Amino acid sequence: MSSLYTERLTQHLQRVEAALPTYLPKEGTLQDTVVRAMSYACEGGGKRLRPVLTLEFCHLCGKNPEIALPFAAAIEMIHSYSLVHDDMPCMDDSPLRRGKPSVHTAYGEAMALLAGDALLNRAFETVLDTRYLQDVPPEAALRAAWILAHRAGIGGMIGGQVIDLESEGKQIDADTLKTLQEGKTAALIQAACEMGCLVGGGSHEQVEAATQFGYYLGLAFQIIDDILDVTSTAEQLGKPVGGDADHDKNTYVSLLGLDKAHALAEDYTAKAIAALSVFDEQRADLTALAQTLLKRIF
Amino acid sequence: MSSLYTERLTQHLQRVEAALPTYLPKEGTLQDTVVRAMSYACEGGGKRLRPVLTLEFCHLCGKNPEIALPFAAAIEMIHSYSLVHDDMPCMDDSPLRRGKPSVHTAYGEAMALLAGDALLNRAFETVLDTRYLQDVPPEAALRAAWILAHRAGIGGMIGGQVIDLESEGKQIDADTLKTLQEGKTAALIQAACEMGCLVGGGSHEQVEAATQFGYYLGLAFQIIDDILDVTSTAEQLGKPVGGDADHDKNTYVSLLGLDKAHALAEDYTAKAIAALSVFDEQRADLTALAQTLLKRIF
Repeated sequence: MSSLYTERLTQHLQRVEAALPTYLPKEGTLQDTVVRAMSYACEGGGKRLRPVLTLEFCHLCGKNPEIALPFAAAIEMIHSYSLVHDDMPCMDDSPLRRGKPSVHTAYGEAMALLAGDALLNRAFETVLDTRYLQDVPPEAALRAAWILAHRAGIGGMIGGQVIDLESEGKQIDADTLKTLQEGKTAALIQAACEMGCLVGGGSHEQVEAATQFGYYLGLAFQIIDDILDVTSTAEQLGKPVGGDADHDKNTYVSLLGLDKAHALAEDYTAKAIAALSVFDEQRADLTALAQTLLKRIF
Repeated sequence: MSSLYTERLTQHLQRVEAALPTYLPKEGTLQDTVVRAMSYACEGGGKRLRPVLTLEFCHLCGKNPEIALPFAAAIEMIHSYSLVHDDMPCMDDSPLRRGKPSVHTAYGEAMALLAGDALLNRAFETVLDTRYLQDVPPEAALRAAWILAHRAGIGGMIGGQVIDLESEGKQIDADTLKTLQEGKTAALIQAACEMGCLVGGGSHEQVEAATQFGYYLGLAFQIIDDILDVTSTAEQLGKPVGGDADHDKNTYVSLLGLDKAHALAEDYTAKAIAALSVFDEQRADLTALAQTLLKRIF
């Protein structure tokens, strides 16, 4: 996975890997099972794209990226909880995640439900804990925490999951699919970028640019994911391929075909890169990241 | 239910009933099903004990209770989400709640899972929304929102649910049962009281007293609930009776027997009332509330 990131982004990744466990609850209480399930759900193997973006935008706004670590950890917890609940039998019924048993496979359904709830809750506990916020003004912390809640909720990620669920087995139009993906995938990536700027004291213009970058990168990222679901092997992907078709999921590939989906991913990637122009030349790392993500489908 | 509350507390109840829907998402989008499921989960019929306590403690600290409405609504959303997830087949498998079909019975399991997630998330979206916080200093809002997250999470309500789940069918000791109930029931009631004081600008001493009151009232409330589960009729309770025994739940009744459980509920109620002494004579409404809750078992 390291080839995805430049040297500075790789440092961010290392910071996230080191810090994330420190924000999770510790074993040694009557809740050890759920504590282990929460850690398991957050274990490495993923790209940590969202928290890396949070740290990088904080850096681009001129602040030490480490002050954004609680927000970076929180968004990874929210991403992880959403996967735990998505994998459950009443949702996508996925026994595997990243090549390992899903949380409900390993810990049972009830514990997976509670571990997901606990991760969502822990995300807010983390970004609201003043012990972690000594270098962040209360107004900025409140605003960043609200962005997290707003993008993760009914108007963002959960909203997208609901459309996804209700459109299984139905043919939906391109507008509905875009609304679905804006919520299900782009919203959290947007929040990651926006929170980094807010915590980093970025200007209104910088926050707006981060919103645009996250939005287009998120949409491109989802199309790339849809394409890989039909063109990869299970070994490359770490999960069964063809899952979208098996679940009658609406994807950009099912709606547009591979060629048009490719072209759309390129277009969104270009728009994401264009949005970065308000940042100084250090934006090159994010430009490279957007291009590397896109290259996975070529 | 009105006989539970004095005139002022009844006014709080009316404020909560009027305000709660305004903080929930509106219909008219692609997410209407989950929006309806969220409203359904929060519909009246409950006592609204937690939000009423939030408003009353804000009042007792000398502020207009209406400034605490976002926090009152949020704690009711969290209470409601916990019931939605608790009722699901992988948890307590309860088809009914307050005499009506549970959310998963009415909307399906996947939608119940998402509606619960959405309510938990919406609670934080509400208490972090600066449009609602114009009369609350950012530091107080951050502190109150953190208390909510802390008491609702792994160190509070969810922690209690985990112990509850893991102890089904096992005999647990009195210490473990107390830890279970401190989390599962007392923690949110504590948060309700503490948030009211924090938003109301209460002194450290007042916040501490609210914590104590909520703690003992919560423990008493749970014992009373356990007793009613074996002594009430289904019609009085609005849900099937004997559910605890059917699920091999550990309760104060199963552990101590009815007489000792009664005595313990009395003792905790007395301690809750004693904790109120730092407030002025208007505390009489909460004293009456604690006594009325206790009387339900006599």
